[in-house]
Order: sequence, then structure tokens, then C-alpha cells
Amino acid sequence: MAAAYTIGLDFGTNSVRALIVDVSDGREVAGSVWDYRRGEAGVIVDPREPELARQHPGDYVEGIEACVGEALEKAQGEGEFCAERIIGIGVDTTGSTPLPVDAQGEPLAFDDEFADDPNAMAWLWKDHTGHAEAEEITRQASRLRPHYLAKCGGTYSSEWFWSKTLHCLRAAPEVFEAAHTWVEIADWIPAMLTGNTAPERVKRGICAAGHKAMFNPAWGGYPDGELLAELDERLLRLRGTLPDTACHVGNAAGMLTGEWAERLGLPGGIPVAVGAFDAHLGAVGAGIRPGTLVKIIGTSTCDMMVAPLQEDLPDIPGLCGIVPESILPGYYGLEAGQSAVGDIFNWFVNYVQPGGSEAGSHEALTAGAAELRPGQSGLLGLDWHNGNRTVLVDQRLTGALLGMTLHTSPAEIYRALIEATAFGARVIVERFGDYGLAVERLVNSGGIAYKNPLLMQIYADVLDRPMQVSRSEQTCALGAAMAGAVVAGRDAGGHDDFDQAIGAMTGVRERAHTPDPAAVKVYGRLFGFYRELHDAFGTRDYENSLYTVMKGLLEIRDEVRGA
Amino acid sequence: MAAAYTIGLDFGTNSVRALIVDVSDGREVAGSVWDYRRGEAGVIVDPREPELARQHPGDYVEGIEACVGEALEKAQGEGEFCAERIIGIGVDTTGSTPLPVDAQGEPLAFDDEFADDPNAMAWLWKDHTGHAEAEEITRQASRLRPHYLAKCGGTYSSEWFWSKTLHCLRAAPEVFEAAHTWVEIADWIPAMLTGNTAPERVKRGICAAGHKAMFNPAWGGYPDGELLAELDERLLRLRGTLPDTACHVGNAAGMLTGEWAERLGLPGGIPVAVGAFDAHLGAVGAGIRPGTLVKIIGTSTCDMMVAPLQEDLPDIPGLCGIVPESILPGYYGLEAGQSAVGDIFNWFVNYVQPGGSEAGSHEALTAGAAELRPGQSGLLGLDWHNGNRTVLVDQRLTGALLGMTLHTSPAEIYRALIEATAFGARVIVERFGDYGLAVERLVNSGGIAYKNPLLMQIYADVLDRPMQVSRSEQTCALGAAMAGAVVAGRDAGGHDDFDQAIGAMTGVRERAHTPDPAAVKVYGRLFGFYRELHDAFGTRDYENSLYTVMKGLLEIRDEVRGA
Repeated sequence: MAAAYTIGLDFGTNSVRALIVDVSDGREVAGSVWDYRRGEAGVIVDPREPELARQHPGDYVEGIEACVGEALEKAQGEGEFCAERIIGIGVDTTGSTPLPVDAQGEPLAFDDEFADDPNAMAWLWKDHTGHAEAEEITRQASRLRPHYLAKCGGTYSSEWFWSKTLHCLRAAPEVFEAAHTWVEIADWIPAMLTGNTAPERVKRGICAAGHKAMFNPAWGGYPDGELLAELDERLLRLRGTLPDTACHVGNAAGMLTGEWAERLGLPGGIPVAVGAFDAHLGAVGAGIRPGTLVKIIGTSTCDMMVAPLQEDLPDIPGLCGIVPESILPGYYGLEAGQSAVGDIFNWFVNYVQPGGSEAGSHEALTAGAAELRPGQSGLLGLDWHNGNRTVLVDQRLTGALLGMTLHTSPAEIYRALIEATAFGARVIVERFGDYGLAVERLVNSGGIAYKNPLLMQIYADVLDRPMQVSRSEQTCALGAAMAGAVVAGRDAGGHDDFDQAIGAMTGVRERAHTPDPAAVKVYGRLFGFYRELHDAFGTRDYENSLYTVMKGLLEIRDEVRGA
Repeated sequence: MAAAYTIGLDFGTNSVRALIVDVSDGREVAGSVWDYRRGEAGVIVDPREPELARQHPGDYVEGIEACVGEALEKAQGEGEFCAERIIGIGVDTTGSTPLPVDAQGEPLAFDDEFADDPNAMAWLWKDHTGHAEAEEITRQASRLRPHYLAKCGGTYSSEWFWSKTLHCLRAAPEVFEAAHTWVEIADWIPAMLTGNTAPERVKRGICAAGHKAMFNPAWGGYPDGELLAELDERLLRLRGTLPDTACHVGNAAGMLTGEWAERLGLPGGIPVAVGAFDAHLGAVGAGIRPGTLVKIIGTSTCDMMVAPLQEDLPDIPGLCGIVPESILPGYYGLEAGQSAVGDIFNWFVNYVQPGGSEAGSHEALTAGAAELRPGQSGLLGLDWHNGNRTVLVDQRLTGALLGMTLHTSPAEIYRALIEATAFGARVIVERFGDYGLAVERLVNSGGIAYKNPLLMQIYADVLDRPMQVSRSEQTCALGAAMAGAVVAGRDAGGHDDFDQAIGAMTGVRERAHTPDPAAVKVYGRLFGFYRELHDAFGTRDYENSLYTVMKGLLEIRDEVRGA
């Protein structure tokens, strides 16, 4: 059979990427990145309201054309490639990033009336203007519908669909009134490419609906009217525009329209998969399977697992989300994560700016940290500079550092920050295990996984498991391209299902980071102290003294120094 | 009566200072500083043994001549001053800094046999080579003579007399054997100036003996043979060279010899007071009285109080030392302190080097910190980077910082470090008060008290008391000069006693730092959290959860920000 290719479109916070992938083996034929043009690197901000973060949908539309065009150009001459052999498209985006649209599915932001109104744009994932609404939803849901919350870690976030729409209703009622419905951009972009933006035709992805909008087939879809009316009667009209079903990424949102085919230089009528969030399709691109935890390590992390639908899955306390088929068809998708990882290192380098003018770069600090042995500095940190997503689900926690002396160096602090994130990662893995989801294999992706071998080694030592690294450095776009291959199907040169696609198109790098037994031992003890700090500072009901923590750190430090 | 003057000689870690003072009003006529010539800024170190810190007594001898000469030269022409009107000399030094001497009282370091042997030099206060010996002494004393330890906070320090001599005995027995006895430099320098270095004629100061060598008239002077023999039989010979009595600074060590009078250009036969430690005479120079706590704030702090001898003074847990007449005749001298204050800020500036190349100076960070309001940063620190001297008496504690976010700035951290030292200061003041020594007045001296008004204001707000600042910036040398005036006596133009001398020669600056009620309120709440951390991390028996600390910090932060 002739070679076949698919395109993954990956809509990030600052740019969109198009990746052309060989369906037979996952080879990345060509890619292109297009930076959004509007706002600050694509993000519309308001200095008077620092929690506000929006995006203009015009960037999505222009971005697709620009980066697909460039990727196709680059791919010319790569083996057997030609644009006619592209058989499908997949889409991943940030989320929850809901967009208010009119009755035709046209974004309000395209209407002259709302041209410069940030409230009429897409409400970017990191918009926290709905902070108070999130607390209200959590309060009402825990009273009226506690089972809704049980699937999203017990707390409804300000980053999510209902917090944002409820806040818009209150803060910008004219926008809320003008909007026929709200569509996640993960759903709106495939709908646009396939001519299905009319609200009744938009396929809603289970990933966004389930993780961010409290959709669950078990309770009949989106939240019921009683809860919504308790929040605000006007939400019922929005609820009325939402379908009873949601689709996984193995479904096509539709077929590429002739008009888009022409604009992009692609064959018309090829299927476009239902969209999903970047982390979820990233997990697919990293080769997720039952027993495999995929870590996507960037400014924050997402830790993804899947479990067969037929298994009886308990609620797992502190897990952000458990949603059927949100990652792979036939499986529950489970999403955990750390609120800040790379962001903590960035804070230290960019805000504290240690080491004078020269020694304070990530590279220099990493080199210095690599010279140190586990436990040597006597430092222990809590990685909560941006709160704790899993397992404490508490955005109002803060970082801590313990054990400083008059000689503590920036490199020691940098290493302690890395270690703190590793301990945080171990808490998550143990939480999965405690609820029957044994982590048999860890696959890492995301920028830091490729760029910082020291961090990967520390993770291997702290978690006492080999750290595999995904072969692809673009797992999100790759996962989207894989969805394109699955919706195309085997007859068209694609794949029957994700099991096939994962087998053919994903892999890990040959060299894994393997645990060093001596380091594992020291980190095992340090982790015990981390857990004490974690429980003492992070939970209400912990009653032990922390005295032994500080003493124990010194003991270990002295042992290590004496060794 | 004609004007009269005295000289204070202040032997520091890196230099010696001579200060010529008008006895009638404490006016500082002229001063001179001479930097020690040997070692690293006067400190003999050994890269192979980082805990070693010694001084060569040649620096003391040369230093006196150089700086007295220069001070006299500067003083010429100042009012009625002439050298003939100098009526007495006082001496303060670092300590415990014991010096091994031969049977004539000549330092072994002046003998060719030991010319370059650091063990034959003065063992500087910050020499910690006797760490193991200190633990052994603490162990044996708490078993055999617990009342010895009760007066020095329950722990015998590696910085003190017996730890050093016992370590010498073991590490350099040839030096210990060659030494007839060991003399604190606070005692040896006055002895040298008065021709009384012969061991049987050296007057031992109660300050050094009482605070560092477990001397107490109540139990017959220095520690008894049973305890010393348990440590090492050979200590009994050293014990045999020590007198049964010790003298306060109101006693003369002798009269200036004709030879020294000629070398220095001073009248012969004027009295030289018994020496004491810098902090103790610094307290005198700052005008200590019952109810007044004198803080000497530098790299570390000393917090000094006095209480009438006739009062029944309880043991105060965690206080470094309670010694009769160690500061003022007729009063107990009480010494508390913080192991690091300025050193913590120096650590942040010199080791962490925050703020890139420009914004990381003390001045820039102080300016940034001054922009912040109490509680604003959400940070809380423990000031234990060099352990905790009072009230935990635990060198093996470390610093901590709590409450960091992704936006925490160097100025916020700097302010939190200042605040942590202020909370530590409050713990000490409260401990005095809890044991019946109410602090009615606080007088601050030491470099930081004059240079950093922000720190003084924070201390006023945290302690909810006015912070007075000593008029003199050289309280140690001034206090030594006052001792010179007292031993000279009123008939010679000096003073009858320290009460008179303090009234005449000391004072505070007009402008005190007064508490701001709003800041006091916030700091009162923060101090509660500090106490929780302090007790949780610093004591064995604390059992409360720390959860409320972190939450409470955020609450305060938000309140302040919202205000």
C-alpha cells in the first residue's frame, strides 16, 4: 500500500503547530510553528485585571492556513510524500478554553459589535477571573451533587467551563446574552474545518466536556438544571444548547470542507477527528496504555493514565479528573498533575536571579546541581509555589524551603527545587497505586524531559523506576495526527484503532534513565520527610511534630558528607 | 577640675581599636583602628580543618602600640586634650579566646619552638575544633554537675574554654604539656600592660571565667576536680593553675608599666581595668541598667541584661549565661543572643546573590523591602541559618522559608529574613519577661542598629516597643574606657562607680524608632505563626499540626493586599 500521512494540529498558548506524520511508523515528515499575532504572544491581557487571559479566534483561523502551508512546503521531496496522500487531520488544543458563538456558530469576536471585547473572545485555560464563581460552584455542587465533584478531585476550578461562563454572565451579561452557546476551541476548530460550526451540529469532545464541564454519561451528560439554576437561572438557556452526548477522539467531527481543502492545499473530504486537550493527545503520542503513566513535563505537569472501562474504578481522592474515553476509546482517562514544575525553576532564575550576573542561568545552575549528591545540601522543599493540583487539590498552598545555612548556594537550592518536584511526582504515582492503578512504566515527554537529563535522573532515583523518554518531542501534535489516522481508518491507509496506531506510530528513546540504588536509598528517606512536611502543611488533620524532619535532614547530610 | 580622659582598647576579630574618651561626658575625642597583620585578616586558618580559627598574640602587642599612637596623634588639639590627662585604660576582647602561656606568662607563640604552630596561638572565639569535646563536657556535666550547665543554657559550647583546652590536650598534647596555664586574652592583655603576666599574678575576669569556663563563686570557682578528671586526668594540672577568685571590671588588673607608658606615650602608673568581653563592655557603653536590655546587632547579636545580686534569680531555660558581676559590679550579668542576624543578610547577598548584577546589594534590597508592608509577601522565615543560641541552644538547627509563590521577589525574601530575626529577638525578650526580668527599655547598638533604620523599625513593630539606639557607635570601646574611668576613681578625675559613669558617659539618640500600631497588629499575628514553626521545628515535644500556619499567612496576605 502507498504511504499515507496525517496532520496533527496543536494549538498552544502562544502558537499553533502543524505536524505531518507518516502513518506507518510515526515518522515526523515536516512541521511548522506559527506564532499568534494578537495580544502578548497570543494572549489578550488587561493590566487592570491580572487574572484575565483571552485569545482571539482569528489567530486560530489564520494560524491553520499559515502553518499547514509551511509544513506542506517543507515536506515536499521527503520520500514519497505528496499532499494528496494526507488522509486525515487531528486537533489538540489548550483547555478549558471556551468560546462564545452565535446561533450560526460564528464566534462573537468576529462580529463588529464585539470586535475588541475580550469577554467575547476565547477564555484561555489560564484565565482565573472566575475564581469566586469556582468557589461557588464547588460549594453548591458539594451540597447538591457531590458525585459530580468526586470525579474532578473534589474542587471545581476557576480554569473550567462553568466558572468562566458563569463569570461572563455576571461580569459581561451583554456578551453572555449575545452568545447562543459556548464551545471549547478543541471542538470549535474541528467543527470549523468540517463546516459543522452550527451549534446543533458541533460534536462536543468528551475530553473537554468530561474534565472541565462535569459531563458524565453516568448522570446523563452535562450537569442537571437543578444545580445550574441554583447558581443562576440564566445558565439553563446555555445548558439547553448542549447535547446529551459527547464524543471521543476516535470519532470524526466531520469531513474537511472543499473550501478549507483549497485554502490548505489538501484533499477535500478527508476526516477531521474530534478534538481533545493537548495533554490527552500528548499521552496518546507518548504511547499510553494500561499500566503506563505518561508525564508531560513543562511549566507544569500532566500525569495521565488509562484504565479499562469495564473495570470497577474507585474514586481516587485528589485526582483532577476521571472521565470515560477522555484519552483513549474503551478506557477511562485519568488526569493528575503538578501545578508548577518548570515554572518553579523559572521563578528561581527569573525572579530571584541568583548567582550574580553569570552563574544564574538554568544551564549553569543545572551544572552546579549535578555536582551535588542526594541529601548533601540538607535542603528540602515543598513544590507548591503555584499550589498543589494533585493530591491536595489546593491552589492556596505555597512553596517552602527548609535547611538553609550560611553557606547554602544557588545550585543547592536549584537542586532542592528539582527534588521537591520529584517528591511531588512520587506522591502522585503512589496515589494511583494505592487505588489499584499500579504504575508499571513511566514515559516522559514535554520540553524538560528532553532537555534536562539531571532532572530525569533525579526523578528515576526519587521514584525508584526507570524513566523512559518519548521518542517524539511533539507528542501532542503526534497524538493529534494519530487521531487523524484512526478516523481515516485502515482502508484509507490509516489505522483501525488506537491500539494499532500506538503500536505503529509511538516509541521511546533507547536510553532510559535508570535508578541508582545508592541515590534511591537516600531519596527514600528524604521522601519520608517530604511526606511529613506535605501532610503537616497540606492537610488539616495531621498532628505529628515536625521535629524529626529537620534533625533527620542533618543526619543524612552529615552521613553523606562523611561518606 | 581639669578635663580627664581614658582609653578603651577594643580587640575584635580582625582589628584592634583605641578610643580616647572624655570622662565627664563620654565624648569620643579620637579613635584609631589597626588591622591585624597575620593570617586572613588576623585569623589563622587551615584549609584542611575548616573549624580552626586562631590568632597570633603578636598582633595584639603590635596593635596596641600602633592604634594608641595614632589615636593620641589625632586627639592633639581637640579642646583641652593632652596625653598627660589620660587617667586610665580599659580593655575588651573577643572570647572565649584562650591563650596558652608558659610559667612566666609568656605566650608559647612567642617561643621559637612553637613559632608557626596554630595550636600554640590564641584559640579564637569562633574556633570550633573542640566540637566533640563540647559534647563530652555537656554529657559529663549534665550527669555529674547539672547545676554548672543550668547557668549556661544547658549546653557547653565548642567555643568555650574547656572545650578548647581539652581538644588541645588531645589533638596537640605537646602544646598542652608545654603550657603552664591558659589565659583568656581579655585577661592576658591587661596583665601584659601592667607587668602582671606571671600566672599567679594574672587577674582572671569574672566575665570570661563565668560565661565560658563554668566559674561561679557559689560552687567555689572553676569546675571541681571530679568533673575534670572524668574528662581527662591531665586537666587537673591546668585546674591547679587557676585561682579561686575572679574579678569584675571595677577592679584594676594593675598599673601601666613604665615601659609600656613610654612605648605608648602615656603617663606611667595609671590603672588598667580587668578585661571583659566586647559584648559585655558594649552593654556598659550602651548604658545598661536593670530593666534595660541592650542589643548588640552585628553578624550575630548579643542581648544583655543585668539584675541585682541580692535578688533571687531563677535559672532561665535557654539562656547562654547568668554570671554574677560579669557586666556590672553588684549585678548578675545575663547574656542571650541570636547566632546569626547580619550573617543571614550577608548570606543572601553574597551566596544567593539575587537580583542579577544590579539589584542585589544590601542597599537595593533594603530599599525594595521598605516598599513592602508587614504580611504582604506571605513569607515567613526561621532565622536559624547558623543554629539557635537562645532559647533553643541548638547549633544544629537550620533556616527555613515558607510561603513562596511564582512571583516572590528578592526584596520580599530580604524583608522576610529581617522579620525572622525580629521574631527571634522577640522570643528572647519574652523569655526574660517570663522569668521575672521585665524588659522596660531596649537600647540597640552594633553596626546594623545605626545603618539600617528599616530593620530597627521592623524590630520596633515586631517587639511592640520603642527601639532606642545608643548614642555612641563604639559602645564596646566606650564601655572599656568607662571601666578605665571607674578604676581611676573620682579623685583622679574618673568616676566612683559604673552608675556614675553610665549617667555621665552614655546616652541614646534623640529619635527612637516607635511602633506603628497597624504593623504591630499584623506582626502580632505573624509572630504567633513564627512561634508555631519555632516550636514545631525546634522542640521535640510539640504536637500541633502546622496547617493553620500556612493558611493563616495567606489570609493575612490577602487582607493586607485587599486593604
